[in-house]
Amino acid sequence: MARAALCPGTFDPVTNGHLDIIERAGRHFDRVVVAVLGNPKKEPLFGVDERVAMLKDAVAELPNVEVDSFSGLLVDFAARRGTLIVVKGLRAVSDFDYEFQMAQMNHRLAGVETFFMTTNPKWSYLSSSLVREVARLGGDVKGLVPASVAERLGEKLGRDKERG
Amino acid sequence: MARAALCPGTFDPVTNGHLDIIERAGRHFDRVVVAVLGNPKKEPLFGVDERVAMLKDAVAELPNVEVDSFSGLLVDFAARRGTLIVVKGLRAVSDFDYEFQMAQMNHRLAGVETFFMTTNPKWSYLSSSLVREVARLGGDVKGLVPASVAERLGEKLGRDKERG
Amino acid sequence: MARAALCPGTFDPVTNGHLDIIERAGRHFDRVVVAVLGNPKKEPLFGVDERVAMLKDAVAELPNVEVDSFSGLLVDFAARRGTLIVVKGLRAVSDFDYEFQMAQMNHRLAGVETFFMTTNPKWSYLSSSLVREVARLGGDVKGLVPASVAERLGEKLGRDKERG
Amino acid sequence: MARAALCPGTFDPVTNGHLDIIERAGRHFDRVVVAVLGNPKKEPLFGVDERVAMLKDAVAELPNVEVDSFSGLLVDFAARRGTLIVVKGLRAVSDFDYEFQMAQMNHRLAGVETFFMTTNPKWSYLSSSLVREVARLGGDVKGLVPASVAERLGEKLGRDKERG
Amino acid sequence: MARAALCPGTFDPVTNGHLDIIERAGRHFDRVVVAVLGNPKKEPLFGVDERVAMLKDAVAELPNVEVDSFSGLLVDFAARRGTLIVVKGLRAVSDFDYEFQMAQMNHRLAGVETFFMTTNPKWSYLSSSLVREVARLGGDVKGLVPASVAERLGEKLGRDKERG
Amino acid sequence: MARAALCPGTFDPVTNGHLDIIERAGRHFDRVVVAVLGNPKKEPLFGVDERVAMLKDAVAELPNVEVDSFSGLLVDFAARRGTLIVVKGLRAVSDFDYEFQMAQMNHRLAGVETFFMTTNPKWSYLSSSLVREVARLGGDVKGLVPASVAERLGEKLGRDKERG
Repeated sequence: MARAALCPGTFDPVTNGHLDIIERAGRHFDRVVVAVLGNPKKEPLFGVDERVAMLKDAVAELPNVEVDSFSGLLVDFAARRGTLIVVKGLRAVSDFDYEFQMAQMNHRLAGVETFFMTTNPKWSYLSSSLVREVARLGGDVKGLVPASVAERLGEKLGRDKERG
Repeated sequence: MARAALCPGTFDPVTNGHLDIIERAGRHFDRVVVAVLGNPKKEPLFGVDERVAMLKDAVAELPNVEVDSFSGLLVDFAARRGTLIVVKGLRAVSDFDYEFQMAQMNHRLAGVETFFMTTNPKWSYLSSSLVREVARLGGDVKGLVPASVAERLGEKLGRDKERG
Repeated sequence: MARAALCPGTFDPVTNGHLDIIERAGRHFDRVVVAVLGNPKKEPLFGVDERVAMLKDAVAELPNVEVDSFSGLLVDFAARRGTLIVVKGLRAVSDFDYEFQMAQMNHRLAGVETFFMTTNPKWSYLSSSLVREVARLGGDVKGLVPASVAERLGEKLGRDKERG
Repeated sequence: MARAALCPGTFDPVTNGHLDIIERAGRHFDRVVVAVLGNPKKEPLFGVDERVAMLKDAVAELPNVEVDSFSGLLVDFAARRGTLIVVKGLRAVSDFDYEFQMAQMNHRLAGVETFFMTTNPKWSYLSSSLVREVARLGGDVKGLVPASVAERLGEKLGRDKERG
Repeated sequence: MARAALCPGTFDPVTNGHLDIIERAGRHFDRVVVAVLGNPKKEPLFGVDERVAMLKDAVAELPNVEVDSFSGLLVDFAARRGTLIVVKGLRAVSDFDYEFQMAQMNHRLAGVETFFMTTNPKWSYLSSSLVREVARLGGDVKGLVPASVAERLGEKLGRDKERG
Repeated sequence: MARAALCPGTFDPVTNGHLDIIERAGRHFDRVVVAVLGNPKKEPLFGVDERVAMLKDAVAELPNVEVDSFSGLLVDFAARRGTLIVVKGLRAVSDFDYEFQMAQMNHRLAGVETFFMTTNPKWSYLSSSLVREVARLGGDVKGLVPASVAERLGEKLGRDKERG
């Protein structure tokens, strides 16, 4: 039986740190399903379709990686996808407590197991929210996110500025 | 003179982790006053009366535990209740800095002393916000909160859904 | 060439902990520019002019310290002020990950270097948000902030109450 | 191709916390090799043969788990066993920095990937050194380690006492 | 029934940080027993009798505080002293994991409850080992430990130097 | 007046992480004095003369950086060198509490101020002890330390093996 691992997240937007984890997970599991949370608590900058599209672009060359979206509990999505395995990157101690809380809860709710990988040190300071913030203030995020994401960020924030 | 300890919190809603701390505090202090913060910064899911009622149900069999609510500074409530002792559970390192900041401030403002207890490991991943989140997404929170709380959560979120 | 260091922050309002860092930075750098972030993500209690004014009062006797405000990226402000040096206080582990993330990003974006100083232990529990919270609930913040700030907090929160 | 995961450690002695990780790893990887470090920096209480024997007893009923020992670099052992996967339990924040340092180093040295699992909360306070300490002082460690380990600890520490 | 609390430690030597915790514990419990661990893992600088003597001097004016020493498990000492309450100071996050591990173990072994107090910020950087280190290198530890302890440190390290 | 900063450490041996901090400190202070602690608590692998020599090689091209050694208190060495400024790298949260403790103590003892820089993420997992450990077990440390240090490590550990 092939083993699938879920890589869940909001990916608002996907960063090079996320891609590092997804790619490395893909080397050790038969299949990786990037699971985009459609309805996070905080209103995302990009809609779920945009976030899925950016991810699909970014993983296009990884043959055993696919992108899907979900709403509701991650453990319910895992059941629909027929796996009990979640893979997440841990960057820093500040991620630790929250991620462990979620991992314990998912294990209790449905026996879902979370495997944490260490984020590549060179992306250790990177997060979607920091990327959005820098882009919003006019900073250059090239090299931190895939080129197409940098472009979409520019368009989105430009367009939003015109509206606002 | 009998020694009373305050167990303050928002309790939105009370979890089995809270109850573990309250019960253990009750073994070592003459009286325990569960102090429900009426007006937390973030809008709570349950009104203060509901939160007090759920707690009263949950501690009904603990003879030296009572439930009260307050607004304003905890140290002012402590003065009204005639005690300088606060008892809190610490689950994880992420609780540490914030709780210590509050404890130092309460000590400075009014000589109120905070005694931290270690949450029972089996509830270490539990928080009111995680319980609300799981319940909101349709997950089963039985065994994480008292049965009557699980029921109220179902009603509240069902009722809210109809409204929304 | 004289070396200037930026001390950036929201300063909503300035506390004695901030002043401790600013004063100590002033002993080791030729010039210190307190850089008030005009447009923080969360709506501040005090407008940028009020925050600048409170700081100017507070540092009036420090000859090599000036106060300025900025919006946008800190690294762009640093470029305008002709320096690559930022000085920040670290109080506790909870500050660590966020501040390091920002420091790494600022280094990457523009070679700006952040030097962290340890906050004086006696102010280790102090933050602008805790000061606002205590003041809002009627607690006494004298001794935690400059006297003029304590006064303005009283006026601001009194005035706001009347309005609300 | 079957996927093997290494579970490395000193196991001086194996605890119920270790066994929880080993068993859960066994559910998600085809084969688990418990890798006993023969020559840790600190002189172990039990010789490597004893530690291996205790582990073999403890995992006897797990069909896809075997026990092996190694000295030298973990990445060299991984190469000999033909795998690039290490699985480790993380109990608490204090484990975090050291384990991440090792994981990054092993990735750099040989592309070995470490997957961290969250230790079951009920064993979160458990470590081999705490078990040895409690046993040495005459405390009861039943329920914290397999029964046969508790027995060997008694013998070992009794025998050592007679010698000393 | 009067409530006694144990304040355990190695106290090699007692510092002003320890005394702050002992004194504050004395205000909230009927009796405080300072419990000096006679046989710590690492060879102490001062013998157990010296450590007890320094503590007795230091707490001479605290009427409800006594000093005792123990070897073996803390929970066995607690049983002999007829209490289930331990009080400890927490200075910093680095204390957290170890102290919580011990607290959980003591609770499991014998129902002993640990109440953690926050060390006064002004002593937050203080530890017995740092005091020994500074004194060994000729630094002045007055103001960090009781005067009589500073004197004994001088004698001890002077005498040891002559011997060495 | 020219401003000198001390970069203290054991440097057993110097790593690329240390060099990153030293070089960046050299850009912002007039002079950097690398201060090699001659007599650390734990017996170093390399003698103080070897450690100084490796550093001198490594910083030969940095015109405003010199290497010196000291024993005793860092604050006394700082006084002899006529500076009150120490610069240190912080890699991870686990460095935080110890380094802050030292910084507070040095400030109290002699007004010496410590400025912490964030270690370049790519060296965040690097430490002298990990380098020694990897080299001792036959791993390749090229790229983690200067080439001449890698060579000396090989000689030292080879020579030690022959002796042992």
